[in-house]
Amino acid sequence: SAMGCKNCCSICLQCLFGYETNVMLVINNKGVGALFRLIQFMIIAYVAVYVCWIQRAYQDTDSVISSVSTKVKGNILTNTSIEGVHVWDVPEYVIPPQGEKSFFVLTNVIPTPGQTQSKCPECESDSDCIEGHTEVHGNGVQTGHCVQYSDTIKTCEVHAWCPLENDTIIPKPALLGAAEHFTVLIKNNIQYPKFNFRKRNLLHHINSTYLKNCTFDRKTDPHCPIFRLGHMVTEAGEDFSVMALKGGIIGILIDWNCDLEFPERFCIPKYSFSRLDNKNPENNVAPGYNFRFAKYYKNNKSIETRTLIKAFGIRFDVIVFGMVTAICDWVMLTCMKDRDQYAKRKFIHLNQNGDSVLLLPVLVW
Amino acid sequence: SAMGCKNCCSICLQCLFGYETNVMLVINNKGVGALFRLIQFMIIAYVAVYVCWIQRAYQDTDSVISSVSTKVKGNILTNTSIEGVHVWDVPEYVIPPQGEKSFFVLTNVIPTPGQTQSKCPECESDSDCIEGHTEVHGNGVQTGHCVQYSDTIKTCEVHAWCPLENDTIIPKPALLGAAEHFTVLIKNNIQYPKFNFRKRNLLHHINSTYLKNCTFDRKTDPHCPIFRLGHMVTEAGEDFSVMALKGGIIGILIDWNCDLEFPERFCIPKYSFSRLDNKNPENNVAPGYNFRFAKYYKNNKSIETRTLIKAFGIRFDVIVFGMVTAICDWVMLTCMKDRDQYAKRKFIHLNQNGDSVLLLPVLVW
Amino acid sequence: SAMGCKNCCSICLQCLFGYETNVMLVINNKGVGALFRLIQFMIIAYVAVYVCWIQRAYQDTDSVISSVSTKVKGNILTNTSIEGVHVWDVPEYVIPPQGEKSFFVLTNVIPTPGQTQSKCPECESDSDCIEGHTEVHGNGVQTGHCVQYSDTIKTCEVHAWCPLENDTIIPKPALLGAAEHFTVLIKNNIQYPKFNFRKRNLLHHINSTYLKNCTFDRKTDPHCPIFRLGHMVTEAGEDFSVMALKGGIIGILIDWNCDLEFPERFCIPKYSFSRLDNKNPENNVAPGYNFRFAKYYKNNKSIETRTLIKAFGIRFDVIVFGMVTAICDWVMLTCMKDRDQYAKRKFIHLNQNGDSVLLLPVLVW
Repeated sequence: SAMGCKNCCSICLQCLFGYETNVMLVINNKGVGALFRLIQFMIIAYVAVYVCWIQRAYQDTDSVISSVSTKVKGNILTNTSIEGVHVWDVPEYVIPPQGEKSFFVLTNVIPTPGQTQSKCPECESDSDCIEGHTEVHGNGVQTGHCVQYSDTIKTCEVHAWCPLENDTIIPKPALLGAAEHFTVLIKNNIQYPKFNFRKRNLLHHINSTYLKNCTFDRKTDPHCPIFRLGHMVTEAGEDFSVMALKGGIIGILIDWNCDLEFPERFCIPKYSFSRLDNKNPENNVAPGYNFRFAKYYKNNKSIETRTLIKAFGIRFDVIVFGMVTAICDWVMLTCMKDRDQYAKRKFIHLNQNGDSVLLLPVLVW
Repeated sequence: SAMGCKNCCSICLQCLFGYETNVMLVINNKGVGALFRLIQFMIIAYVAVYVCWIQRAYQDTDSVISSVSTKVKGNILTNTSIEGVHVWDVPEYVIPPQGEKSFFVLTNVIPTPGQTQSKCPECESDSDCIEGHTEVHGNGVQTGHCVQYSDTIKTCEVHAWCPLENDTIIPKPALLGAAEHFTVLIKNNIQYPKFNFRKRNLLHHINSTYLKNCTFDRKTDPHCPIFRLGHMVTEAGEDFSVMALKGGIIGILIDWNCDLEFPERFCIPKYSFSRLDNKNPENNVAPGYNFRFAKYYKNNKSIETRTLIKAFGIRFDVIVFGMVTAICDWVMLTCMKDRDQYAKRKFIHLNQNGDSVLLLPVLVW
Repeated sequence: SAMGCKNCCSICLQCLFGYETNVMLVINNKGVGALFRLIQFMIIAYVAVYVCWIQRAYQDTDSVISSVSTKVKGNILTNTSIEGVHVWDVPEYVIPPQGEKSFFVLTNVIPTPGQTQSKCPECESDSDCIEGHTEVHGNGVQTGHCVQYSDTIKTCEVHAWCPLENDTIIPKPALLGAAEHFTVLIKNNIQYPKFNFRKRNLLHHINSTYLKNCTFDRKTDPHCPIFRLGHMVTEAGEDFSVMALKGGIIGILIDWNCDLEFPERFCIPKYSFSRLDNKNPENNVAPGYNFRFAKYYKNNKSIETRTLIKAFGIRFDVIVFGMVTAICDWVMLTCMKDRDQYAKRKFIHLNQNGDSVLLLPVLVW
């Protein structure tokens, strides 16, 4: 069995240190050889053209960093029985006023002026009055008293900002339905930090005179950054006058997907608009978009009163997205003529997805 | 040496145009051949099942685009010596009121009513009074006068909104600690533009009656989009009554990671909650979350007065994240039964990560 | 031809079930064998070191989830002919006051006090007066009357908040130019959910005493999260006093790109600052950054008056970005000494980009 072991060891060693190689047949025929090299060349060309050019396998990517500011313009005159003649300007109907990437334009209001902290009957429910009880959907905290609300109905008295808001009737047509003629200027600056690339949506060829008069139109003015509210809502497939009643959310999508292989002038933003909230009435709680805010006053006796405003309107969310891709730099180096950004990129970045780097030589040979 | 050169050239040419091929042994044995094909089939199956199905190597991905709106409900009655009975409703304690994806719920307040622009002694410091000097942590700009603050302390007089705020004593328990019973309805619409996929967190099977009464519970109501503030804070591992004192930040994370290979009904949001600010007292400046805002009034003499409010509370940040992945479409084409979205996708998108496309045939043969 | 068909079938079968294999030459020479194994080892080492270590091909990545809160400190005393001595504190000049990741610091104001809803001549245009007409860039809605504006100019009367704002003269130097001495504390908590990794920009080694006195400086205090506004603007390559006049947008970029292979203490935020809006005057509408907001009052007769404020200032956008990468875990398992997070990661996550997993064994053999 020592013999057996010795045999076994020798086989193992043979296995470990034996060198296996293919038996090769070399044909010294120029025709066959040329054909062979031609096939090799075609594989390289395939990889270069298909993988790099069409598929762009060997690319580096970066996500967009964006900054948005917005500025709405327009005035509306309303004439209601409660408030009389009232002109609405930007500081009144754009909330918040700062012009950030999400801005709300008031289209319909239910004002409740003269509210003070006091007690009043809650009209909604006639359930048992429990002191200190708060109905989640009610308007205040119950005092425990049951008072005459109308000739026929007795309801709970509540501690609240009284008189209570009555929001059962929504003004129709919407009070500020003319808001569809308002315009908004959207300024958007983007950068792709990895490639040291910066651009803004006010393109180079746009001058101040043009900007003073243009409004965005997909066909005639596709690069004008001034948008008519009504136009955006229409492009999103909605009817402004319907949407103005109960409000909603419109997304202004700015697509900065670019291929940095091409000259910088080809990297232009594409705008699209879509309704982001759900308008279908089925299984929808609280359809539309509204919120309540208040303006606080103090009267002569230093008692705080407020005007509660239930604000219906359209929230516009500017959503900037994009992924930039840089080119195959071995193969495509030649096509980079006017790209001065290219020089600034570090080579290491272009190698980050290492598998592709390895894949190419492996496939070729 | 002409001979040597000729030799050298001929070797080079041989090298360039010589065709090398392996010597192959063909065994015409059906058993061995069938085994060979079986092994080949197993490799294909491995790639198909393991790479595509389990690893999903050949997939295209897209990041979520999201829109959020929130609506808080609830009332609180407080009874303090300064303000008397006061009912707090949503427009008062939710800041900002618009119902965006980040909303702040007031839980504790230090009010300073009746402030006017005037001069008053600053109680904090008794350092030398330098005219025009502004202490970064002080409350105003020094007038240069040193005045009697109390019987024993002389301090600098400051130009400021006087009387100065005294925030040394924080109300305990928190004034609006009952805010834990408030609920918030979160409406979230997402889309993956590359795949033309849209969904919202109000799922199809949820009807209006259910929504009117449900509150989120991980076990009994995992799809109800109405959350009790106290429940979220508890899930984040915190005590609401403690957190209400000095405030903090709670993240409401909505995870939309989906695999579009499966029918759309399997793509449902997963909610989780975690505290985002740091509660550890060690090396923590300004623990909790608070800010100051003011309500401005004009009195009879047209002098501006204000009520300064130091607001402590919980900021809820709705953070939506997700990466959708689409399936291996060569191999898995059969499993796509009810996915009408699929047809809308362009084939080019599915090929974007070209390395995988190439990898498969290379591996198989 | 039956013979031909039989032949054809037999060739097909041969093709299908014939087993082809290379003819191998085995050299039982220990020197050659050892060399062969050495070369194999070098390939493995290359893959391990180059692919995994340097190129990090086999890594899993995750995008940052971030939460930011900000707190500005500082006071300014101004003395103007209109308003007299006025001290500006944080609740007045930071808008919105909540301390979110985007905050605006007022640097220049054009106040228009005492506006009421009434009629007044619009000074800008002397075009024909059309009743109900709204100039997009005008201040109100035309009444149809043409009134004497000054001795020489007749203009349209408008329904508006009167008196109209006159914003032709911007205060120079900026009213709140001293805002450059304000400081802002930025608290930033990040997490990479896939790796269960959390960190904040208040690093472990920073204590409360240090935080009370430090301000960020790239050389001396690179980890202090308190920034002087003027310092940030200077680092962005701008002049604060110039920028304060008309406003602008400054990006505070926090880069959390980390390699989780290294111990957690190496994962530290890198701050940088850059101007995000465009300052070049050519083809620029509405340069700078401004918006209008109003404070509403009610006078004795319950008539609403307001102070309109055209606010110029600098918006600071805190932009947090980062991509975390985890390490090659086959090869690098040894280098993970003090990383307790590692254990928490699920193995499945590390395999997600399956192509790399497959690539490695394929390349080696």
